[in-house]
Amino acid sequence: MTQQFKRLKLDIVRPVPSDHEISRNQLPKHITVVGREAGITSEELEPYGAYKGKVKLDVLERLSDRIDGKYILVAGITPTPLGEGKSTTTVGLAQAIGATLGKKSFANVRQPSMGPTFGVKGGAAGGGYSQVIPMDEFNMHITGDIHAVGMANNLLAAALDTRMFHEATQSDASLFKRLCPIKKDGSRDVPIGLTYRIKKLGLDINKINEWSEEEISKFVRLDIDPKTITWKRVLDLNDRSLRGITINEAPTEKGLIRKTGFDITVASEVMAILALSTSLKDMRERFGKIVVASSKKGEPITCEDIGCAGALTAIMKDAIKPNLMQTLEGTPVFVHAGPFANISIGASSVLADKMALKLAGTEKGLSEEERRDKVGYVITEAGFDFTMGGERFLNIKCRTSGLKPDVIVIVATVRALKVHGGGSDVKPGMNLPIEYVSENIEMLEKGCCNLQKHIENAKSYGVDVIVAINKMSSDTNREHEIIKQKSIEAGAIDAIVSSHWEDGGEGAKELAEGVIKCANKEYEGQLDKEFKFLYSVDGTIEEKIETIAKEMYGAGSVKFSEIAKEKIEEYSKQGFDKLPICIAKTQYSFSHDAKLKGVPSNFEFPIKDIKASVGAGYLYALADQIMTIPGLATKCGFMNVEVGEDGEIEGLF
Amino acid sequence: MTQQFKRLKLDIVRPVPSDHEISRNQLPKHITVVGREAGITSEELEPYGAYKGKVKLDVLERLSDRIDGKYILVAGITPTPLGEGKSTTTVGLAQAIGATLGKKSFANVRQPSMGPTFGVKGGAAGGGYSQVIPMDEFNMHITGDIHAVGMANNLLAAALDTRMFHEATQSDASLFKRLCPIKKDGSRDVPIGLTYRIKKLGLDINKINEWSEEEISKFVRLDIDPKTITWKRVLDLNDRSLRGITINEAPTEKGLIRKTGFDITVASEVMAILALSTSLKDMRERFGKIVVASSKKGEPITCEDIGCAGALTAIMKDAIKPNLMQTLEGTPVFVHAGPFANISIGASSVLADKMALKLAGTEKGLSEEERRDKVGYVITEAGFDFTMGGERFLNIKCRTSGLKPDVIVIVATVRALKVHGGGSDVKPGMNLPIEYVSENIEMLEKGCCNLQKHIENAKSYGVDVIVAINKMSSDTNREHEIIKQKSIEAGAIDAIVSSHWEDGGEGAKELAEGVIKCANKEYEGQLDKEFKFLYSVDGTIEEKIETIAKEMYGAGSVKFSEIAKEKIEEYSKQGFDKLPICIAKTQYSFSHDAKLKGVPSNFEFPIKDIKASVGAGYLYALADQIMTIPGLATKCGFMNVEVGEDGEIEGLF
Repeated sequence: MTQQFKRLKLDIVRPVPSDHEISRNQLPKHITVVGREAGITSEELEPYGAYKGKVKLDVLERLSDRIDGKYILVAGITPTPLGEGKSTTTVGLAQAIGATLGKKSFANVRQPSMGPTFGVKGGAAGGGYSQVIPMDEFNMHITGDIHAVGMANNLLAAALDTRMFHEATQSDASLFKRLCPIKKDGSRDVPIGLTYRIKKLGLDINKINEWSEEEISKFVRLDIDPKTITWKRVLDLNDRSLRGITINEAPTEKGLIRKTGFDITVASEVMAILALSTSLKDMRERFGKIVVASSKKGEPITCEDIGCAGALTAIMKDAIKPNLMQTLEGTPVFVHAGPFANISIGASSVLADKMALKLAGTEKGLSEEERRDKVGYVITEAGFDFTMGGERFLNIKCRTSGLKPDVIVIVATVRALKVHGGGSDVKPGMNLPIEYVSENIEMLEKGCCNLQKHIENAKSYGVDVIVAINKMSSDTNREHEIIKQKSIEAGAIDAIVSSHWEDGGEGAKELAEGVIKCANKEYEGQLDKEFKFLYSVDGTIEEKIETIAKEMYGAGSVKFSEIAKEKIEEYSKQGFDKLPICIAKTQYSFSHDAKLKGVPSNFEFPIKDIKASVGAGYLYALADQIMTIPGLATKCGFMNVEVGEDGEIEGLF
Repeated sequence: MTQQFKRLKLDIVRPVPSDHEISRNQLPKHITVVGREAGITSEELEPYGAYKGKVKLDVLERLSDRIDGKYILVAGITPTPLGEGKSTTTVGLAQAIGATLGKKSFANVRQPSMGPTFGVKGGAAGGGYSQVIPMDEFNMHITGDIHAVGMANNLLAAALDTRMFHEATQSDASLFKRLCPIKKDGSRDVPIGLTYRIKKLGLDINKINEWSEEEISKFVRLDIDPKTITWKRVLDLNDRSLRGITINEAPTEKGLIRKTGFDITVASEVMAILALSTSLKDMRERFGKIVVASSKKGEPITCEDIGCAGALTAIMKDAIKPNLMQTLEGTPVFVHAGPFANISIGASSVLADKMALKLAGTEKGLSEEERRDKVGYVITEAGFDFTMGGERFLNIKCRTSGLKPDVIVIVATVRALKVHGGGSDVKPGMNLPIEYVSENIEMLEKGCCNLQKHIENAKSYGVDVIVAINKMSSDTNREHEIIKQKSIEAGAIDAIVSSHWEDGGEGAKELAEGVIKCANKEYEGQLDKEFKFLYSVDGTIEEKIETIAKEMYGAGSVKFSEIAKEKIEEYSKQGFDKLPICIAKTQYSFSHDAKLKGVPSNFEFPIKDIKASVGAGYLYALADQIMTIPGLATKCGFMNVEVGEDGEIEGLF
């Protein structure tokens, strides 16, 4: 059913126009064509307008016999605030493999938050001649998944607060009468959502009319300690005013005020669950496990206790289907889930990766040569640098999915390496200092230590590394040679210059050839090891954190705050200590201190707090205060936006 | 391009199963089939999954030469809290005209809020054998319009608060430098969103570098008086904890705390604008006119002043396209916009009505007979009873659209009329008192005064009225006869019993025949008048309110509170006094007092406050405190919801 792939021709213009202009000048294929070309049946594709579609999970079942395609992880070096082109490389590489080299390829990327879209950041669809189109649709709504995440998150929040209100204002008997009203025949109407708590408490639902007062009380009272509530409301906007708020101030709420705040929607645990779920059933179970608070006795109170997990699943039942879009050259893209990289895994969904790997996969029983010829490539991205994003990808996402990458691509730029070699700070909106726009071998050589540490870290998982040098116009050949040499020294299997931003897939052709060669183990000296995790989940929370901090970040020691110690004790008692760890820290250094460039070592790594995302399946340890809802600047993205009478958006980026 | 309509056969079961069960047992047609049958081209339809689609506004242009189809407004008598089946009648009538009688028909309904979906109310897709399917998709997300409304509303809120923050923490010079940064060539980069304020202030953008300090200050400082802010944030959930909140409490916000609250999304002015806009350009202009606060000098501060209207339009550019779905018998349904009936117009969109009227319309140059044969019917609904919802529909929505109904259908039930005849209170979840489940002629006869007043009110606009008696199982023929007789007495052109809830379109066949006859002026004694509004917008605010209260509600006088008087003065000064009026009051009485059943008269009608929805284009006058975000009950809709592994939702209603 796969039909011949039709490449969208690039009409390359110099100087490179704005991202939005490039996107608008390319007429995308209808999404049904993209789907057919990708091997998705028309029954499996649900178009959402002309250029977006949802793909049913049935694909996984239909292709379950296939051997997966090749799995390519794109990560980066420690970046500057300008970004080093990781998404652009992901898309460019997919264009090169799919459109230039004519192999099957999928780019798997995250859905961007609309907050930054109207803030300062601009879009996240790649850039230049390597992007996902139409970029305005990519950056707004897509098929509504983030909105569904927000609804699910906020239904749970409303249910939690309302339950506390009703418990505070009603007797046990009244609560029982209302929660499980007596029917005409004398039996009780027990909502299905409350049956899970009945089971958890070991009560017999068939003897509900014989429960003792104590049993009734245990059932109807969650007895939440307001101080322990960790569940916040969310909004997909940069709304700084909601960082800290007091709620329940209306007279109807009888003075039960409490302090809380909003996060940006992508920071919701619901989003992390969307990214990590392996099936609808798995998602349902994860929702049930979400811990929102503790009871006054210290027991974890879950979404299941509130009776809300089924409704969350209903809200999210379409969001679980990966979204199909396309690159500028018409190769397929899965856009699915976008957990906030600052406190979550920062990777797109397990289900989109699994689906793409099956679609890029091959039938069983092929010869090596046939498989080499037919196999496709799934390029997926990890947020931030390899050592943060890649580590989480491997130890959390891959642990959940059971997948392992065939190649890790580490994106490096001359600019960022010079920062690590002592160059002055760079900031968005500022002109670049002189060292970044002219050759500076010494500074670059010095800064390559950062790249080298990321390569070594990546190789420690047993996966080969290729360095992608994301070319910028002021780079010199000598500078590129140095990066190549330093990469090979550190154990990269190759280091290849790529000009996909200005040239599209054609500019990443050599990089694509290298990646294909590496994925098929055709370089000399490739690793011959099994993939392995950095740590076992069976260790203590402290051990796991220490392993990450020391072996990945280069810390000499870890200092746990008093709060962190208390949390460790609490989570261990509650049975949440066997989860993998997501460390939240700055992305601008291997360490916790954004100012420490290059490869800092022997620093004391602080853990200020630890929180639990039990539904998503990890603990996150905070090395710093992490801002979970950004603000808007004085001059803001939204001020540039206008819509013509033809419905065309102007000035989005 | 219209293809032969394929009726979905009903498989009628007794007793009538739950709404959700009926919906699930019917296999809908693919939305592309529904679109083709309705005369929508494949280029004009954007499918969103298999059973929903958006229809491009291009339809209006393509069919602009057609004479509109017949426009049927469905309204009700003063209802009980159980609802009297207005939506069900709307859908049943469309099924009867379209599927039973084989004419073109469209049901135009509102998109329901998800708040009540997970609260106690349940769905809003009609019911029994007259409903919109699939009902779970109808009740959740549809194509994301409500989410887009929320985003647009909340972007404006975030922009407003952030602007106040930046103004409070920066000098004029700093604000100016940031809002309009100096480019390399010395000119300033002025975001397009700020050019409107420059024009409004009469400043010359070409001389921006020559502006005086005073001019700069005027431009950069909106100088908002926090006490005057009327713009609230929204959420599409019943979250009572957010009714009253304090924001800006995070340390980053420098103590600029203020009190505010959330409304439910459908109460947002953005939703009212979606309902009332006549084109994308019109929507853009309305967004610009939204007034969010006053400056300390008392000038209205608009969305345009904040530079946000273009971005709101971008967020809403797909939401403006009406959504196509289908009834249980496969006739087309437009689901578009759902402004909160309590404080807004409670009707679906102008654009959906216009589109349906063109699709149901006929080519020019047909004979009377040919037109009679070919013309189609658009059944649209007004929230609440005729005297609230219908009055707003006619005086606000029709004033905007330029459309006028051919027939007004008033839905009555024996049950509700008995309440107006002195029957005891009815409440959801309670067993019905005896007078409602057995014949009670006296009570019914007495209660018919309520129906009669609605008929008289409706006729005063110059439109003929047909009464639809929504049949319930305990009704008797004698009871129906009395309603018929009383209806005719009051001037209704006919009164027809309809059993669409239990029989689908077939049950509304006679009603449909009556509506068709009336729309084509084939009854004897039909009105021969021009349609006329109740009031001219040129009157004063007081005059307009008094006209509605006295002529529609039966009030003897109107008492304006001090606040209301101040607002009238303020709005008159600001030039907002020539807008139509939306009165917010209880829907359970003609008066402001829910306890006054039947036809109260000579009461003093209180106006406690007046607010402005300048973008939507009306003032709303509050006869009472209106709750703008509902709460969740102890036992709540969400507790019944579960999702099977096959993705089927259980227990939604």
